[in-house]
Amino acid sequence: MTDPDSTAQPEPTAQPDSTDHQPDRHRSTTLTDAEVEDLERWWRAANYLSVGQIYLRDNPLLREPLAPEHVKARLLGHWGTTPGLNFVYAHLNRAIVERDQAMLFVTGPGHGGPANVANAYLEGTYSEVYTRFGDNEDSLRRLFRQFSYPGGVPSHAAPETPGSISEGGELGYSLAHAFGAAFDNPDVVVACVVGDGEAETGPLAASWQSTAFLDPVHDGAVLPILHLNGYKIANPTVLARRPESQLRAYFEGMGWAPRFVAADDGEDHAAAHRAFASALAECLDAIRGIQDRARSGEGRGPGDSAEPWPLIVLRSPKGWTGPPEVDGVPVEGTWRAHQVPLSGIHEEPGHLAQLEAWLRSYRPEELFAHDGGRSPELVRLAPRGDLRMSASPHANGGRLLRDLTLPDARAHLQAVEAPGVVRAGAMGVLGEWLREVVRANPETFRLFGPDETASNRLQAVYAATDKVWQERIEGVDEHLARAGRVMEVLSEHLCQGWLEGYLLSGRHGVLNSYEAFVHIVDSMFNQHAKWLKVHRELPWRLPVASLTYLLSSHVWQQDHNGFSHQDPGFIDHVVNKKAEVVRVYLPVDANTLVCTMDHCLRSRDYVNVVVAGKAPALQWLGPQEAREHCARGIGVWDFAGSEVAGEEPDVVLGCAGDVPTGEAVAAAQLLRRDLPGLRVRVVNAVDLMRLQDPREHPHGLPDAEFDALFTVDRPIVFAYHGYPWLIHRLTYRRTNHGNLHVRGYIEEGTTTTPFDMCLRNRIDRYHLAMDVIDRVPGLGPRHASLRQRYADAAFRARDYTRRHGEDPAEVSGWTLGD
Amino acid sequence: MTDPDSTAQPEPTAQPDSTDHQPDRHRSTTLTDAEVEDLERWWRAANYLSVGQIYLRDNPLLREPLAPEHVKARLLGHWGTTPGLNFVYAHLNRAIVERDQAMLFVTGPGHGGPANVANAYLEGTYSEVYTRFGDNEDSLRRLFRQFSYPGGVPSHAAPETPGSISEGGELGYSLAHAFGAAFDNPDVVVACVVGDGEAETGPLAASWQSTAFLDPVHDGAVLPILHLNGYKIANPTVLARRPESQLRAYFEGMGWAPRFVAADDGEDHAAAHRAFASALAECLDAIRGIQDRARSGEGRGPGDSAEPWPLIVLRSPKGWTGPPEVDGVPVEGTWRAHQVPLSGIHEEPGHLAQLEAWLRSYRPEELFAHDGGRSPELVRLAPRGDLRMSASPHANGGRLLRDLTLPDARAHLQAVEAPGVVRAGAMGVLGEWLREVVRANPETFRLFGPDETASNRLQAVYAATDKVWQERIEGVDEHLARAGRVMEVLSEHLCQGWLEGYLLSGRHGVLNSYEAFVHIVDSMFNQHAKWLKVHRELPWRLPVASLTYLLSSHVWQQDHNGFSHQDPGFIDHVVNKKAEVVRVYLPVDANTLVCTMDHCLRSRDYVNVVVAGKAPALQWLGPQEAREHCARGIGVWDFAGSEVAGEEPDVVLGCAGDVPTGEAVAAAQLLRRDLPGLRVRVVNAVDLMRLQDPREHPHGLPDAEFDALFTVDRPIVFAYHGYPWLIHRLTYRRTNHGNLHVRGYIEEGTTTTPFDMCLRNRIDRYHLAMDVIDRVPGLGPRHASLRQRYADAAFRARDYTRRHGEDPAEVSGWTLGD
Repeated sequence: MTDPDSTAQPEPTAQPDSTDHQPDRHRSTTLTDAEVEDLERWWRAANYLSVGQIYLRDNPLLREPLAPEHVKARLLGHWGTTPGLNFVYAHLNRAIVERDQAMLFVTGPGHGGPANVANAYLEGTYSEVYTRFGDNEDSLRRLFRQFSYPGGVPSHAAPETPGSISEGGELGYSLAHAFGAAFDNPDVVVACVVGDGEAETGPLAASWQSTAFLDPVHDGAVLPILHLNGYKIANPTVLARRPESQLRAYFEGMGWAPRFVAADDGEDHAAAHRAFASALAECLDAIRGIQDRARSGEGRGPGDSAEPWPLIVLRSPKGWTGPPEVDGVPVEGTWRAHQVPLSGIHEEPGHLAQLEAWLRSYRPEELFAHDGGRSPELVRLAPRGDLRMSASPHANGGRLLRDLTLPDARAHLQAVEAPGVVRAGAMGVLGEWLREVVRANPETFRLFGPDETASNRLQAVYAATDKVWQERIEGVDEHLARAGRVMEVLSEHLCQGWLEGYLLSGRHGVLNSYEAFVHIVDSMFNQHAKWLKVHRELPWRLPVASLTYLLSSHVWQQDHNGFSHQDPGFIDHVVNKKAEVVRVYLPVDANTLVCTMDHCLRSRDYVNVVVAGKAPALQWLGPQEAREHCARGIGVWDFAGSEVAGEEPDVVLGCAGDVPTGEAVAAAQLLRRDLPGLRVRVVNAVDLMRLQDPREHPHGLPDAEFDALFTVDRPIVFAYHGYPWLIHRLTYRRTNHGNLHVRGYIEEGTTTTPFDMCLRNRIDRYHLAMDVIDRVPGLGPRHASLRQRYADAAFRARDYTRRHGEDPAEVSGWTLGD
Repeated sequence: MTDPDSTAQPEPTAQPDSTDHQPDRHRSTTLTDAEVEDLERWWRAANYLSVGQIYLRDNPLLREPLAPEHVKARLLGHWGTTPGLNFVYAHLNRAIVERDQAMLFVTGPGHGGPANVANAYLEGTYSEVYTRFGDNEDSLRRLFRQFSYPGGVPSHAAPETPGSISEGGELGYSLAHAFGAAFDNPDVVVACVVGDGEAETGPLAASWQSTAFLDPVHDGAVLPILHLNGYKIANPTVLARRPESQLRAYFEGMGWAPRFVAADDGEDHAAAHRAFASALAECLDAIRGIQDRARSGEGRGPGDSAEPWPLIVLRSPKGWTGPPEVDGVPVEGTWRAHQVPLSGIHEEPGHLAQLEAWLRSYRPEELFAHDGGRSPELVRLAPRGDLRMSASPHANGGRLLRDLTLPDARAHLQAVEAPGVVRAGAMGVLGEWLREVVRANPETFRLFGPDETASNRLQAVYAATDKVWQERIEGVDEHLARAGRVMEVLSEHLCQGWLEGYLLSGRHGVLNSYEAFVHIVDSMFNQHAKWLKVHRELPWRLPVASLTYLLSSHVWQQDHNGFSHQDPGFIDHVVNKKAEVVRVYLPVDANTLVCTMDHCLRSRDYVNVVVAGKAPALQWLGPQEAREHCARGIGVWDFAGSEVAGEEPDVVLGCAGDVPTGEAVAAAQLLRRDLPGLRVRVVNAVDLMRLQDPREHPHGLPDAEFDALFTVDRPIVFAYHGYPWLIHRLTYRRTNHGNLHVRGYIEEGTTTTPFDMCLRNRIDRYHLAMDVIDRVPGLGPRHASLRQRYADAAFRARDYTRRHGEDPAEVSGWTLGD
């Protein structure tokens, strides 16, 4: 382990496949000189277009000597990773053509944007998608200008980038995206370039283990290309400084058979091409071999491990083919190549000359015709039609998306003879409906969860499908199989990344998680919401299925797990993103949950957040009422209130979320019993965004309707599932906001009973009833003793729980009418 | 790679150390029968106390036959991982005593709480920390009752647990915490049990690579014990189902030398003890060997890789020593042992008998004296004093914490002859002060960052220290060394986890990150804030240094990185947590940043969030003014406004954050020029929580002071750094909230210039000035043409940027007085 690092090797360390199979007919171990020249040509062209994007605002074909005015005023962009991406892309294209193999290209390294754009342009896709571009000098000029330019295109792969399903801004998710795109795509190979910087992130480190979840029969393949260019922004990378023996062990340990291509001297391009082409051919053959064996029905036994999948480790200089030195210090092959290697164009005359020499080293005159169009030799090299990775329909999933076949939700809605009498577990009922969704969509729907699908009470789905598992299966295991619709891994990052890849490539899915721990993917949600915001603005990107979070085991139901498991803040996080992208639902019982999910699985281009309870709880709305209530999103619950027809209520009890709603209804019941003359209105919101100003959110209730529900001057006591201030934030412009008082979770949690959780956060029926007494004018002074009775009841309940370890019967066994 | 998994082995696969050194004098390869019996005794005692915690409310010593009334009504807790933790703990104790070795115990697996409490009780620490407990039967009864009981202790390691620095609720952070505790602790070995469930998480998967950052000379050691008990909540784990050859490769690939202990048959305890003791002795010897060689000055050359660190893989049954079968299905050794293996005590009579047999299998009568006190044989086995892992001062870092030696901030504050004239980069100036902090505290302060320390302009620190790096160092590298104060890894999870471990073990540090990507650790922040909330309520936990986030490259300065890098929502996330724990600062320039950081590094038990700019920007406050302004946290900027002494202003321009403040001051200047009679007050908030109601946050301004600043009836136009609704949320109770209008980031981002970012989000000077015209009564109708001039100026600026790719000179070169 302490051997010095292997030095640069011109030839790949080609180890034989660990499995024994016939060479594929496509296999070409050595390239002809003409083939090398073709690869070099594409690479030169892509590199030229990349450097052009970073630097040039004019003279795009270098017809004139390069002058300062041809160079952008602000030099923004990143060169370092780009030539390596272009190198890989050229080789993948060759393999696609040779093998007629559908491939997808996922760009992991940060700031590889110039490469993606360059290759899409060379393939003709860019001009098809953005029709203001053609294949001529003016298009090149505009292509160069728009890059990292105000209103232009970003410096990393993004929604604007044809062929991309992975944002290259925040790092670490590329490999999970690649696996998501490969699931249920048996004919596709997803090539995923992983940067050695991003390989240090947690999500990427976990993603290598996705081999335990990829089924060679029904899924496609992922071919990772770990790109060791050695440096991040300002530091070497861990993996690049590890000896090859250690890297090999690392990947073999995670189910991969790595092949090493050492091109780190950077000089001998032909050797690098030959080495990479050979490794790539071996990998694609190996993939075919694994798939053929698996699909031939030879089948592994349950005790067998999975076959290792091929993987390429490409060692090449950062900023390959760029300036070796600038101002006397090494640049190529160091972190200094990360951004703009020659940044003093407008100050240092030497830099301009160096830039010109660099650009001319790619011999643009051979690559582009006199009119600026791509040379026929270039055009010939690109795959055709949808085989072009920049034009792959799998990277514009809306092109492939088909509606789910959804079972009739009505068949799953529960009879509720009267509100608040029978009990059911909402998630359990939903599980039965999801079981039918799985049955009806055996190839386009998956359920993702961090080992919590059963804990979240969705286990009914196992009657229709299994959990995917490629490792050893033992006799004691239940519902594990090589193929299935449920993905369970103890990594929210993997669940989210897989699902994003699955959705963006045109399929459907749901992520179920404990509510508190979905914060683990806050940042991934951010990036996906940003992706959707831009995606929606691009007419060529067709709508994809929404990403639906189904959050259970929520803040009020973590009695045995305690404070660390109590956090309802994901909703707050979500509503910071663009209103047109986010939807938040708080179903109150089984029927409203089923109706909500039925709606979410039909929706497109949103992020839906659904928070629902799993514990047996009172059911409020029958099938018809539930559908109507969900359609409205918010409404008065006449059965719970004590209004007098035609008169304004004295107080409005608002509620959102299953537990707060139960407490609000109970509070209304207490008040009806104890203050029979008081007119209490109960308003429940299932669609949280109905509360917001319609100028802020498309679901926002018009002010007149809001005022009709909440009045313009009566006190409102609102019991909310999460942090109370969110309700203020959503409603601060409403007429009656000054009279709004919100109870919610105020970060008072611990291991305790469900009702004690309510008491600690003062969202329980007694505190709500006290709030009403305190806020309805005149009530407080006249009913001080009643208020004290409520306070005593709250105290007694806490005391009972402390002594007995459970909730008192009057709250735990409560039904409406008690 | 496809070989079948190795079957259970009674003896460890003891591979010789890859390095050649003399056996340690402590080394004991085989245990005597008496030593085995001692280990077994401790293990039995800890297991008995663990089962007791889960089940019993009475009859704690089983003096009577077990009756239903002795069993808790609600059975909440987790058995599965507990016996394995107890097993490891027993062995570590033996090694501590034998070697006089200071160790720390980090509990990775979820829900191992019963084990931590049991061992702390057996060591006597529990009764020292919680003096209501003694060493008698009544204490045992109460120890059992409190577990997973309302108001009691949670089912995982938590702040309440003596000896813990790692919350076991959300999984994945244990190993990073362990490394954090080991840094700069050369005499400590941090034993970290890693669950095979949590090993699937991203943060844990990345944490193994921390070997690249642990210096054997100045740091202690981390000894991971991967506990393969095979199952998560409801599924097998990936690592447990991988063949041993693959696991070995995986760990060797990451710089570890694994030793395997196979105890998965569960039956032969003596063999298991002998195997584990032998592996542990080898590991501790190997650690000593690595450290001795490194510390002897033999020293590795820069080209050498690090020596591999020892690691133990312990394979044992989940729920070891628990019921093998319940109701005819296997429990021990399966996922069914995860929670409460016998859950039908009050319904199934057979369960009660099975529970009694299980409890009696530990022979409590041999473990506890007649009065319930620990038997002398047990007491003898525990380490003494601070060597007890439950009593380690490193796990109660406040005991070891010493104040930082802070250089005089005044020496670093910049002269500002007039506000808004000179430019400086705030982060660069701070870097010079941090350099002195590093110099003055060479062993107790570290700076953590995800490869962004230089990008965030703190590179001045490299004059005083280096970046830690244990891999190969090459000639081209700068500021890399085996030891240093700067930790750079491209993983926010590692940075955060390391820093938490470093702080909780009594040291100081700062995490610097791009603002947008700190969301990656939202969830880790949650858990740390929850930890601090509980920690503060425990008198025996002494104050620790605050966790300070220094966020730069913020939303308004991501012109070249674009939309994916633009997200100011971390502040919103943070303020959901308990107000007594969180502080948010938005310094406006270099001097206020230095003053703020000086304050933060003196603080205790908080999370501080500091957002600061790195780009050259106008400086506002001189040394004295900056210190006064930061001390107040909020105040009127007379130099910027146009008030008339003794008169109420017509409008208040509020601002928080460097870029919004610049725009607000510019707007005030426009208005002074164009509407000379208008009395504009400019109020700047550096301490954001001054805005909040004092009943909600201890920093909240009293209402009278708030009203004095913001008036009770004049329009307020507020320019805020982040999402605008946060200001509404903080101020909705304030008298004048109805007149508050907030501009902020409204998720309109892209690759563009700094001022164009302001324009797109309407937080620029022109929109602010228009807002003033719109909101001051009577102004709009009289000044429609002026308003139009501002609108035209905004339009022209956007158009200029679109055409020229840079901001117009009048905004980019602007100084106060222009």
